[in-house]
Parts: sequence; C-alpha cells; structure tokens
Amino acid sequence: MIDFGTILGNVRNRAPLVHNITNYVTVNDCANILLACGGSPIMSDDEGDVEDITTICGGLNINIGTLNKNTIPAMFLAGRRANALNHPVLLDPVGAGASKLRTETAARLIDELRFAVIRGNISEIKALAQGSGTTKGVDADEADQVNAANIDSVITFAKSFSKRTGAVIAITGATDIITDGERTCTITNGHPMMSRITGTGCMLSAMTTAFVVANQDQIFDAVCTAVIAMGLCGELAYKRLSPLDGNSSFRNYLIDAIYNLTEQQLKEEAKYEMR
Amino acid sequence: MIDFGTILGNVRNRAPLVHNITNYVTVNDCANILLACGGSPIMSDDEGDVEDITTICGGLNINIGTLNKNTIPAMFLAGRRANALNHPVLLDPVGAGASKLRTETAARLIDELRFAVIRGNISEIKALAQGSGTTKGVDADEADQVNAANIDSVITFAKSFSKRTGAVIAITGATDIITDGERTCTITNGHPMMSRITGTGCMLSAMTTAFVVANQDQIFDAVCTAVIAMGLCGELAYKRLSPLDGNSSFRNYLIDAIYNLTEQQLKEEAKYEMR
Amino acid sequence: MIDFGTILGNVRNRAPLVHNITNYVTVNDCANILLACGGSPIMSDDEGDVEDITTICGGLNINIGTLNKNTIPAMFLAGRRANALNHPVLLDPVGAGASKLRTETAARLIDELRFAVIRGNISEIKALAQGSGTTKGVDADEADQVNAANIDSVITFAKSFSKRTGAVIAITGATDIITDGERTCTITNGHPMMSRITGTGCMLSAMTTAFVVANQDQIFDAVCTAVIAMGLCGELAYKRLSPLDGNSSFRNYLIDAIYNLTEQQLKEEAKYEMR
Repeated sequence: MIDFGTILGNVRNRAPLVHNITNYVTVNDCANILLACGGSPIMSDDEGDVEDITTICGGLNINIGTLNKNTIPAMFLAGRRANALNHPVLLDPVGAGASKLRTETAARLIDELRFAVIRGNISEIKALAQGSGTTKGVDADEADQVNAANIDSVITFAKSFSKRTGAVIAITGATDIITDGERTCTITNGHPMMSRITGTGCMLSAMTTAFVVANQDQIFDAVCTAVIAMGLCGELAYKRLSPLDGNSSFRNYLIDAIYNLTEQQLKEEAKYEMR
Repeated sequence: MIDFGTILGNVRNRAPLVHNITNYVTVNDCANILLACGGSPIMSDDEGDVEDITTICGGLNINIGTLNKNTIPAMFLAGRRANALNHPVLLDPVGAGASKLRTETAARLIDELRFAVIRGNISEIKALAQGSGTTKGVDADEADQVNAANIDSVITFAKSFSKRTGAVIAITGATDIITDGERTCTITNGHPMMSRITGTGCMLSAMTTAFVVANQDQIFDAVCTAVIAMGLCGELAYKRLSPLDGNSSFRNYLIDAIYNLTEQQLKEEAKYEMR
Repeated sequence: MIDFGTILGNVRNRAPLVHNITNYVTVNDCANILLACGGSPIMSDDEGDVEDITTICGGLNINIGTLNKNTIPAMFLAGRRANALNHPVLLDPVGAGASKLRTETAARLIDELRFAVIRGNISEIKALAQGSGTTKGVDADEADQVNAANIDSVITFAKSFSKRTGAVIAITGATDIITDGERTCTITNGHPMMSRITGTGCMLSAMTTAFVVANQDQIFDAVCTAVIAMGLCGELAYKRLSPLDGNSSFRNYLIDAIYNLTEQQLKEEAKYEMR
C-alpha cells in the first residue's frame, strides 16, 4: 500500500523548490501545477545561471521539449551540479525519437547524468532506450501503445531500462507503468481528454520532481503517487466539465483539482496494482 | 458555398500534425487551439532540430512574433525542408512594419520560401507587400483600417499580393479578406473583444495551418473556414461571458468553443460573402 | 488622496503600448493583464529588434526572470534607447540574490540605466541594493519579511535606495511599500492566494509600466494605484472562488477582475496609508 497521506503531506509541508529547464510551450502550466501541489517553481536555462539556481533548489526537472543549442549545455551543467549535490533529477525526453537532436541529447543526458526518474510516453522511452524510434511528434506512436497483449513485455523492458540507468522509469499513457527495476506499479487512473490539452506530460514531470524531492526516502512510491494524482485529477476535471466547456477549461480544472487534492481522494479513487 | 462539414471533418479525422516556429507569448494557446480543432502541435525552433521535426509533420506555421538570431535561420531551414516535401507553410508576419528586423525577415521569408498562406492584420500585410509600414506594435494601425470606402482597393491589393507570392492572403480584422488571387471571401464574423486578449491572430494562424494540411485539395476554402470558425467562436465566447468574466475567461471560452464547434454552427452562423 | 479615477481613466483612454523584455514563464499572463487594464503589449528581446520596438512604445518593462546571454544585451540596448527617448523604464529584478548572474545583471542595469520604477519582493530589492542576498528562488526569504517591528527600517532603506537610483521603489508583499524617496505609501490590499499562482509579481510589473506610461505627471501615484489594483483584484478573485476552484481559476479571475476594475471599487476598497 502506498502511504498517500505521508507523501502528499510531505510535499505540502516541505514545499520543495524545483529547478525547471523546460520548454516554453507548457512552462506556465508547469509552474502553476508545482504551486498547486504545494511545491515552488523556478525556471532558469542559461549556462551562466543554472548552477547557482539548482544549488538553492531541492531537485531538477529537465524537459527537452524545445531544446536548443543554448539550453542543451545548460542541462548538462545543471544536471552535474544537481548530481554532485545529490538532488534528485528527472528527465522528460519530450519528442525523443522524433528528431536526431532530441534522441541524441536524451541519450547523452542519461549517459552523463544520474537520473532519479525518467518519465515519458512509451515511444519516447523506447527511443531513449534503443537510440532510435518512431515517435509521432510529441505523442506516442499508435504502434507502441501498451495493451493487455504486450504489457508484460513492456514491463520487462522498463525494468531492464531501470536497472541500466538506475532511475525509476515512468511510462505514462492509458495504462501507466512505473518501475524501479524490482517493483512495478500499473496505474489506470486518467481520462482520454488529458491528451486534448498540451502539457499533461510536462506538468506531470514537474509535479513528480516535487513529489520525489519531498519524499527522498521513498522515491518509487512518490513517483507512483504523482502519476496517480495526475490521472485522478484528470478524471475529476472531466467530471467538472459543463456543456460549453472544452479543453481550455479542462486544463484549468485539472490544475485546480491538483490544488484541492486530498489524501482521502487518493485513497478512495486510486486505481493501481503492485506487481 | 463552402463545404464546412467536409473541411472540419477532415481536420478532425486526419488530426494534422503541425510544426510551429512561433513566439513564446502565445505558444501555449496555439498548442491548445490546435488540439481543440482536432490537430496536433509540435514546437521546435533550433537549427539542429527543425528539419527532422518538420519532416514528420504535415505542415509548418512560421510566426515571427518573438523572432531572434537563433530562430530566424531555423525558420529558413524548416521552410526549405517543408517546401521540398510539399508541406503547406503558413507565414504570420507579426509586427512586420514595427521594426526593421521584422519587416526584412518577413520580406526575406516570402522571397526565399513558398507559402501556402500568409495571414496578418492589414498593417502587417501592407508592410510586407510594400517593404515598410506603420504598424502600431502588433496591432493594425488605425490609418490602415478596412472600411466600406476602401475595401475594394484593399481587395485589389490583396489579390495582387496573392498573385505575386502564390499564397492565399488572409487579412484579418473587423472584416476579414481572404483571396487566392482570383476568388475573394469577405467575412464579418468575430467580436471586438477578440482584440482584448493576446494571441487571437497567432491562434488563428496555427489553426489555419491545420485546416490547410487536412484539406490540401481546397486550400482557399480551408482558410476561409478557419477564419470563419475563429470569428464565430469569438462571438460564442462573448455570449458566454458572465458579469465577473473578463478577457482571461474569454480566452478560455474561445478555445473551448473551437473544441465544441460543429458543422451545424458553421452553416448557421457563418457571415461570409464570395466575390 | 490618490486620484484613482484620473489614473485609471488615463490608462484606458491612452492605451499605452508597453515593450516587455520578460521571462517566458509568465509572459502570456503579462500580455493579457496589460490588455485587461487597458494597455497594449509587445514582446521583443533580440538585440536586432529591441531598439526599433521600444521606439514605437510608450515605456519599457525589463524582467530578468529567465535572462540569458542573448536577452541581457538586449535589455541594455532597449533600456538605453528608452532612456534617450524619456520613456519610463521599469525593472523587475526576478530572483536577484538567487544567482550571481541575476544579482550582477540587475546591479549593472541600475548602474547603467535610469529606471522610473523598480519593483520586486523584499529579498530581491535588498539583494539589488546590497549586491548580495538570500532570496529563496523567486520568492522572498522568510527572514526578510516585512512586519510591524521592522517596517520603519524597511521604509528608511527603501527611501535611501530610491534616492540613490532616482526610481520609485515598490517592495511588494503582504504589506506593500512604495516610495519616491520623500513620500511613502503602505498598502495592505491583497490575498495570500496570490502567492499560489506564478506571475503575480511579473503581471504587476507589466501593469505598473502601463499605469506609469499613461500618467507620467504623477508616477508615484500611478505606481501606488497599480499596486492597490493588483491587491484588490486578488481579493476579488479570491471571493469569486467556488469549492472546486484552485489556483488556475484564481489566475483567470484575477486577470478578469483587472479587466472589470472600476474607479468606484478602488475608492471603496483601497487599503493604503500615506506617510
């Protein structure tokens, strides 16, 4: 059993400060969801700035969504400093598989840095593990979708990738798979409408970093809780939609739901299975 | 008659993936409106990344709203690749006329690339066609406003610019003028409150790209439909406002309305005239 | 007594065009709050673009929230041009004290440029005045909080910093302190929930620039009015929250409240004291 109360309570009481090197598409949503969950965001991506900033933070969230020649070196500098300070570092390999630059940068990041967590969709994680891929832009390729027929092999793959990298691997989608190489948690919270807004994955990565920073003695459970929380809040946001609402209101309701999330809701509505 | 049902249906069924090189001010809204209309967004603006990304997309939206020395060469690289692949490319010359860099970059883009669509306000399009202008920042100069007295001459100008560039020209404002050099469509959907949020034009450009990608056999009608859809959803968003709502809620309602837009609404509420 | 009616009326009638060199985290909110208050935003941060853009604007808002090696020189270029044109320039030293680059850049900016207003939290302003600091990321350090015991010494410090820089100093927090070196205004409007969204400070800086541009004969009163307006709208946004609302809805309600703000509300709800 995951101790949701302790994990959520730690985020809110410790208010972890998270350094984000992230894309400019969803950065505002990442900042607001960090504040919603009880954390505190700071964004900084210049080589001359990132080491100082990551030093005063509790953890680092590296998202390659709009990587460029200026921010890539900053990711390495910040990552090395965070590693040296034993701050948890999360990698979100947005679009790995969709371009050579993304695939290679993500691969170099996992070669040169130590990640506490790597979170992406199945296509991104496969591209990252295999060095190539068929990502459809920033969404998972349909050919890669996790289903009842292939879930066991996906879990085997994820465990192996976790052992190789030392990171908790979080493959998110309709069914989420989280593994630390030994334990595996599958999660079926969530709603299809979450794919109709930009940034669900980015927001989850930012929030997961906060959960991990605040719960460093139980990183695996912290990642599972963040993923469950996001899925559950997607369900709550969907329930809140009125007939004229669409994806823009859905985004607001999702962040609002994280803001109002309780231990009780997690206990009653979490749909997860430990394997 | 525009076949709204087919055009909107194609966007939703084909879910066109659109590569955006756009400004960081309204990028999140552009991503969410692309998802709202049924498309899928990806943003990438580094020289080392854009060619791969545009290759896997169906079309390219170039918006110069916060152009800089790193993104300008990326616009040309991506544009040339998209041209080589016969992907439709749209130009949004944000602020052309307001600075030498914007005016000249936009002029170079139309010289060196082949655009399917060029969309801007009247001041931007005039600056682009004439190489100079009096744009008031990112809004149209009052001296340039389209009215009953000058609309014929504006249409003549737009047709000529369309023939010169080979692009469908979309001049948007209180009255929108769309022309492919032969046919012209004037549209009077819309609401003044659309100018009280940032990004109406940027969102329309992103969405228009999706409409064009999904309807390459009828690009002119696709552009008209996107412009009508935006104006109509501005009206619907305005109607939805309650007394405490302001421009921030209006933005949400506008994107929501695109999400919920039906063929029926387009048929009943479109205010356009073919000339 | 502050003449709220004239100050707010001037913003709405003159529709000041504000050039923003700002961070990509909250830039969309800054643009929308400028539109909400009656101003007009333009963002531009490339060295080749900023001088032309600032020339056509009424004032300049420099925010160092995601400064980098490309935007820093642009801040100086734009600032010098704005100074030469006697356009009011505002500095928001986001995160001064949190990194060497931020602290030093902010210090160089106040050395080389003439600011009409400097607005930040107490930790940022102290770091800026003293050349070092203990900022907790982008939020004020608890050790720095203004309270009844230290407010007199904070005011003395702010007055001295105002005299040194020639700028109106706005230290915002639970109690806001505004001074032009002679007069001081303390403001207690606002709500703690304002710290649960990203960008409250950035939005206030953008809006303050518009208020100052539109009221150049009474800059001190214009700054006070902008700060009161922001705090009051934070209160109004909080009152509007329903049980399922969280920080994302709060952000929308805050901008909406600025959009709907009246002279009457300011007169009745302003909580300020002139010293």
